[in-house]
Amino acid sequence: MIYNYGTGDQENWLVLEPVFNSKALGKCEVIMALGNGYMGMRSATEERYVGETRNTFIAGTFNRFHPSEVTELPNVADVFQMRINLNGYPFDLTTGEIQEYKRTINLKTGELIRTVTWRAPDQRRYQLKFQRFVSLANHHLTGQKVTITALEEPLTLKLFSGIDGQMTNSGVQHFIEGERRLFNQNVLQLVQTTSESHIDVVVSSTHRFHINQQPHEPGRIIHMDRRQIFYEYDIQSDQNTPITLEKFSYFATSRDLSHEALLLDEIRAKAVEALSKESEKGYDALLLESAQAWEKTLWSVCPIHIDAADGFDQLAIRFAQYHLRIMTPVHDMRMNIGAKGLTGEGYKGHTFWDTEIFILPYYSYTNPEIAKRLLTYRYLTLEGARRKAKENDYEGAMYPWESAWLADGEVTPVWGAADIVTGESTKIWSGFIEQHITADIAFAVWQYYQLTGDEAFMTAYGYEIIFETARFWCSRLEWSDTDQRYHINQVVGPDEYKEHVDDNAFTNYMAAFNIQLAINYSEALGRKAPEDWIYKLERLYLPEPQRDGVIPQDSTYLQKPTLDLTRYKNSAHVGEIFRTYNLTQVNALQVSKQADVMILMYLLENQFSPEVKKANWDYYEPKTLHDSSLSLSTHVIMATDLGHDSLAYDLFKRAAEIDLGPKLHSSDHGIHAASLGGLWQSIIIGFGGVRMIDGRLRINPHLPEGWRSLKFRIFWKGEPLQITITSSELQVEKTDTQTRIEIEVFGKYYIFDEKVRIVYRD
Amino acid sequence: MIYNYGTGDQENWLVLEPVFNSKALGKCEVIMALGNGYMGMRSATEERYVGETRNTFIAGTFNRFHPSEVTELPNVADVFQMRINLNGYPFDLTTGEIQEYKRTINLKTGELIRTVTWRAPDQRRYQLKFQRFVSLANHHLTGQKVTITALEEPLTLKLFSGIDGQMTNSGVQHFIEGERRLFNQNVLQLVQTTSESHIDVVVSSTHRFHINQQPHEPGRIIHMDRRQIFYEYDIQSDQNTPITLEKFSYFATSRDLSHEALLLDEIRAKAVEALSKESEKGYDALLLESAQAWEKTLWSVCPIHIDAADGFDQLAIRFAQYHLRIMTPVHDMRMNIGAKGLTGEGYKGHTFWDTEIFILPYYSYTNPEIAKRLLTYRYLTLEGARRKAKENDYEGAMYPWESAWLADGEVTPVWGAADIVTGESTKIWSGFIEQHITADIAFAVWQYYQLTGDEAFMTAYGYEIIFETARFWCSRLEWSDTDQRYHINQVVGPDEYKEHVDDNAFTNYMAAFNIQLAINYSEALGRKAPEDWIYKLERLYLPEPQRDGVIPQDSTYLQKPTLDLTRYKNSAHVGEIFRTYNLTQVNALQVSKQADVMILMYLLENQFSPEVKKANWDYYEPKTLHDSSLSLSTHVIMATDLGHDSLAYDLFKRAAEIDLGPKLHSSDHGIHAASLGGLWQSIIIGFGGVRMIDGRLRINPHLPEGWRSLKFRIFWKGEPLQITITSSELQVEKTDTQTRIEIEVFGKYYIFDEKVRIVYRD
Repeated sequence: MIYNYGTGDQENWLVLEPVFNSKALGKCEVIMALGNGYMGMRSATEERYVGETRNTFIAGTFNRFHPSEVTELPNVADVFQMRINLNGYPFDLTTGEIQEYKRTINLKTGELIRTVTWRAPDQRRYQLKFQRFVSLANHHLTGQKVTITALEEPLTLKLFSGIDGQMTNSGVQHFIEGERRLFNQNVLQLVQTTSESHIDVVVSSTHRFHINQQPHEPGRIIHMDRRQIFYEYDIQSDQNTPITLEKFSYFATSRDLSHEALLLDEIRAKAVEALSKESEKGYDALLLESAQAWEKTLWSVCPIHIDAADGFDQLAIRFAQYHLRIMTPVHDMRMNIGAKGLTGEGYKGHTFWDTEIFILPYYSYTNPEIAKRLLTYRYLTLEGARRKAKENDYEGAMYPWESAWLADGEVTPVWGAADIVTGESTKIWSGFIEQHITADIAFAVWQYYQLTGDEAFMTAYGYEIIFETARFWCSRLEWSDTDQRYHINQVVGPDEYKEHVDDNAFTNYMAAFNIQLAINYSEALGRKAPEDWIYKLERLYLPEPQRDGVIPQDSTYLQKPTLDLTRYKNSAHVGEIFRTYNLTQVNALQVSKQADVMILMYLLENQFSPEVKKANWDYYEPKTLHDSSLSLSTHVIMATDLGHDSLAYDLFKRAAEIDLGPKLHSSDHGIHAASLGGLWQSIIIGFGGVRMIDGRLRINPHLPEGWRSLKFRIFWKGEPLQITITSSELQVEKTDTQTRIEIEVFGKYYIFDEKVRIVYRD
Repeated sequence: MIYNYGTGDQENWLVLEPVFNSKALGKCEVIMALGNGYMGMRSATEERYVGETRNTFIAGTFNRFHPSEVTELPNVADVFQMRINLNGYPFDLTTGEIQEYKRTINLKTGELIRTVTWRAPDQRRYQLKFQRFVSLANHHLTGQKVTITALEEPLTLKLFSGIDGQMTNSGVQHFIEGERRLFNQNVLQLVQTTSESHIDVVVSSTHRFHINQQPHEPGRIIHMDRRQIFYEYDIQSDQNTPITLEKFSYFATSRDLSHEALLLDEIRAKAVEALSKESEKGYDALLLESAQAWEKTLWSVCPIHIDAADGFDQLAIRFAQYHLRIMTPVHDMRMNIGAKGLTGEGYKGHTFWDTEIFILPYYSYTNPEIAKRLLTYRYLTLEGARRKAKENDYEGAMYPWESAWLADGEVTPVWGAADIVTGESTKIWSGFIEQHITADIAFAVWQYYQLTGDEAFMTAYGYEIIFETARFWCSRLEWSDTDQRYHINQVVGPDEYKEHVDDNAFTNYMAAFNIQLAINYSEALGRKAPEDWIYKLERLYLPEPQRDGVIPQDSTYLQKPTLDLTRYKNSAHVGEIFRTYNLTQVNALQVSKQADVMILMYLLENQFSPEVKKANWDYYEPKTLHDSSLSLSTHVIMATDLGHDSLAYDLFKRAAEIDLGPKLHSSDHGIHAASLGGLWQSIIIGFGGVRMIDGRLRINPHLPEGWRSLKFRIFWKGEPLQITITSSELQVEKTDTQTRIEIEVFGKYYIFDEKVRIVYRD
């Protein structure tokens, strides 16, 4: 795949597929996915191909197929597919000849456009243009436009279009088939209901035709097959006379907050009415409304400008912001972000620490309202977290490793991929013992609070999360008579290639941070912190740097044999090492999946000296396979801190290429949500050097060599700051001149009320 | 599609696809389907294509996805698919160039063979040969062989093969995912369990490789995806050095009679053991065992030889016999034949009157043991039939229009295709009021008994069926004070384009036949028939021929307007009329879907004079669209009886072409089971003129002009008769010279004990 970054006002806004490649279906479906946080659709083509994955997900509509499985986001009926028959030949790019081809996603407007000049097997040529968007202005709505022109002879077009409810999640059918009907002689509607959570999903579609811009009523026959309702249209047009189809679809569910008090029939009627009304406006007007919403709610709110030799960097951050927006259910606090957004079945739509540690900083810094909503989700899931604690004989709130609907509690599946040695499924331990998530959430609450000063949030939700999580940790600690200290044994840390370890440094330090936070906030609220918390925190074992400065990742890591990892680090496949070793064997080696001690040093950066950071970088990075997309961004930031500037930029490029790069199958299961948040962090926290250190703002820029400037906006204590960084200067502008803020830049402190311009390097 | 009928000892045994056609996928999947009555598989290709349907059905494993749907045969995990990568290019016939191609099903051996010479997009050429069978010798077993030779350069082959449980029935997933495992380092196994009927299905596969006929152990990696377990193999070979893969799979279920007392783990272990043992023999030996079973149990038992100008006729009857065998669950009396056999989702694997009226005569005449088993199924389903009667306030046994598992009772779905006028689903009334099936079953019991003299069957099962069905009819009749007669109102007859009719002639006559049978058998068994039966039968209204000889199909048919049907009768689509009219409108016209009065005159032929038959033919045939595959064979037989010899042959050709003809999509939903039984009847009952008339054997041949001779075997009262018919002579040979039989030929009677030769025409 090659990227063209657009020219003129499209410059660095376009991702382009210049050549049709039937092996790259998954890649384009995902990186060109559409959505609005309410729903997300993979951009499978209108015509079908072997190897495609057609997905439509609506946030929060979780369903459990069977008690032996965990809940997941079900794959809703598909509206984008069409069978197009041109003078007797099915439009299929693996046949005939492609004379021109271009597919682009315009990140600015959210429109997907594909143009093709195709010569059918009978040598007749056609021009086809396909356009699509998922509306950001009306989050139930999608628009689609297809323009077909026969270039050499008149066209007899047969077109099958409607709603296809035969979609599954890799063979799992979550829906009971409901009614299919035609309303008002123009709205097709299909109802489906999830089998266990009993959520009704109502999908409605309507079509409008034009020939040469004149409205046209084609001949049509309605078909209802199993879980399908569609029209077969017959249309004739002359040579060089375009036939245009506009198709609008409307998705509504009984889970929607606005539908909570409605009967299914009312939701259905409302959908027909809304769709009929919206579709009157036509494709172009509806697209414009949506593009305006993109501008108003995203691009004008937190623009990022990178003036760089390589336009790819600018494109990459816009790509990240685009995808972060379409994956985030800003409309409903009962929902959160899935590890693959709404673009694939991977991780079943579940929420992980990815949200708090990798994505939330983006929102806390740039759109605190959204950050608050995402954290409120964690408050709303406290019930499940308390239940998980109780089930494990702990107190307080033990957050699930994977989280779905509010009261679900832990939803991590128990069985994973095949063990290459035994041929059996591998047990997934994360749901049982990857416990750091509980501290990660407390950390994110603290970070949000520090950045925003949002006392109301803390009073309503934040303090309770921090106290409940601290209670969990205190009950979780295990006393050792040997060293007279508390330990956290038998866990999985961020490095998931080490299972059942004791005293994982990241986990222990973050737990201590969490307890300390609770103690601080107790006291700040004028209450006395429980003795128990103080007692246990004082005696909690925190692995110290050894003589060489290296902090043991866990109690046994440093004693394990090492291995030459060159082959695996350079592999084209994630998880290449499992083609040679099974997990038990990898467990016994000094091999890490991802940042572990490194991310500790990033999150709690002022607890470790530069020397210790350097020693740990030098020790752990060579042992880290970066087999998780969560790994690289942390390493970018640490590399900037350690002065490895060109390495930092190389790692940034690699991180940006996780989805946007040339590996055709890297995105098949969905977009790498955390990695996109990490990309923002790499730029703003890493190269921009923006940090919140114990509640204070520090900006130590380290622009990559090829970057002339970096401009962006962040919110600090509720106020937008416009920041411009060049290779030598930093400028910060405020809008509210009534307030004053202080920033630290390379050890110097600046207090200002309007604007400050600092030459940080000569 | 063109058919080549083979040469030499393959003459008229092969169905050939000479050119790959991606639009004919469904056609070849079905007409080249494999099976053995225990299971059936559509012959989807190893590589996947858009539009394919991969189906594996195991007889009797019915499951109901949800109470809102009816039970159906679930689509079991697929073992035949493979992803084949040749020097980096996926084997895909829509890409590159096909230089040679041939796919054949050998009806004699049951082997499917596909040979291709393919030039990959990089211009390298390969020869591939794919072979497959489903064993008739061990009904759990399938064999597959793939031979790949690189013609120009060495070959690096990457091959993905295993078990894919992501299959659905048009999006409906009937299985709970069970364990996937590797046993003994060579047997892959996937377990799936039906969600409602709790039937475990255990699918096991094993692979063996050869390079240039030498055993080879390729590099391999095991993968487990959702509902999938497969191996990725890496193999290198030199130019012109064939790589051969043999794959064997074993299907076992907890529904199998032999597994009834076993635990799942025992079934699994047994499957691994059986598969390991069988696979040792290798593909060629296992195929030979299966081919021998075909010869021993079918081709040598009821051979049919047509010496004709057109070899297609011979092929067509072998095709019918082949398919009738693979659709018939001869191994288990708890199962019956589905309307689409085991070759498609159509009609959900349900059993209709198709079995008794269209297929059973084939078995009753040629393999009475199988006929007995199929009728025993009806005995075993009496519970559901009694329940259906009771639910409708009737007595006795009211057989379900659609039948599945034993106690299920009625399983006809309630909603069907879209009404083109209203856009709503059409209600399917057959399950409520298409009641003639109950008499059809009684008729078939009688016919079987007359042909075989199987008193044991009658005592154990047959009489009870006849008495119970008669009881139903007597309770069903409705008294009319107006004409002082009993009527059967509000039914659907065989012509399903007429719903809610009164006094459908077919239904009334067959009901009368059924009651008469019960009275006769009561008396024959020395009991007095209930007065009620006699009273009601005497007063049951039977529509009489009118002055013009026409029997009214029902009480209103003859009063309805007629319509010029030319356009619909010549249409390429079944149900073409519904593109113009909806069912309510068709209901109001003199338009018939299929034989109705005609089939009455065929089944109860000696109740109607030749003149009446002619009058009704002349009246109804022009009004019949033959929109059911059940229609043509009846018309073939009636045409022979009426002396329309060349028309009869034309209709026979049309009947043979329902599946074997050029309409690419006619078989997409599965084979036309009843039509194949009808094809046998067209030949033996129609052209051969073989009839059982009131327990006597009559043979009035009417060979088509192009046929030089017709030879076949039937059973008469338990004894095989070898019959040879030429255009002028009829010869019948017996094997048991101790018995004597009488036959009627064109009004003359012949009694013989060994052989008779009759010149029936000069």
